[in-house]
Amino acid sequence: MIPTDELHAANERFADAFPHGWLERRPRRRLVVVTCMDARMEPLEILGLQVGDANVLRNAGGIVTADVLRSLAVSHALLGTQSAVVLGHTECGLHGMTNDEVRARLGASTRGDFLPFADLEESVRESVRRIEGSELLPPSFAASGFVYDVRSGRLQSL
Amino acid sequence: MIPTDELHAANERFADAFPHGWLERRPRRRLVVVTCMDARMEPLEILGLQVGDANVLRNAGGIVTADVLRSLAVSHALLGTQSAVVLGHTECGLHGMTNDEVRARLGASTRGDFLPFADLEESVRESVRRIEGSELLPPSFAASGFVYDVRSGRLQSL
Repeated sequence: MIPTDELHAANERFADAFPHGWLERRPRRRLVVVTCMDARMEPLEILGLQVGDANVLRNAGGIVTADVLRSLAVSHALLGTQSAVVLGHTECGLHGMTNDEVRARLGASTRGDFLPFADLEESVRESVRRIEGSELLPPSFAASGFVYDVRSGRLQSL
Repeated sequence: MIPTDELHAANERFADAFPHGWLERRPRRRLVVVTCMDARMEPLEILGLQVGDANVLRNAGGIVTADVLRSLAVSHALLGTQSAVVLGHTECGLHGMTNDEVRARLGASTRGDFLPFADLEESVRESVRRIEGSELLPPSFAASGFVYDVRSGRLQSL
């Protein structure tokens, strides 16, 4: 575990500089980025966005779950966002796995669904469809899908 | 909506530089950061972390939901993380709201639970307890809570 002292020391340096200063709560670009928790991805940097531009939602797989739809509804209703981009990525840990394999690695007698997927592009397209079909968002709320290549840094539109 | 051309042009510049190069899938610091989707927060920067150091989970409120527990289990089982930090923040849109208020702003006849909360510190503490109590994670998986002040950039340990 990272010692709390180390995190506080790093945060002191950040807060002393506080490079972005005061920012509006409402994202400047009215955008939500939905992506994976993957440590190799820094979503703002990949898309050329600034801190303050977009809400960012991340989970294992970058999959549009019920919790992501809840979050998108909050973002739209309270913060005025109007569109989402879904970023899948190559070499995702959940790509090509099965629930039984994840459960075996957990060593737990769980029946949980960890949302592994067999086809990366189809996973992103399905996430885009879930946003487009959500009753929590108006038809005007737009969504588009991309795949990020962790070896080149390049995005491909779907 | 941001034009796809603009995102691709920005991504071309990023990929041409590709500043972090090839990175391991497993987070270097074996850490997961759980925080809010808020546009004003760049979690790595706030904590002094580098791209590649940590998995990052973000939803509306930075609340440990079932989807966050799923993601933490995947992170631990497949990517070897051993601890999590939960970052709540001041001036969150869900702080002090009620479900009825969120529903009214959505204009939708929904009975969904948008997970508003009345007490910021208690919300973070409850999220930490959910991680500590999860049957999907071993007792050795550690969790700690912080509150981030969006006006100063400073973290407070809970």
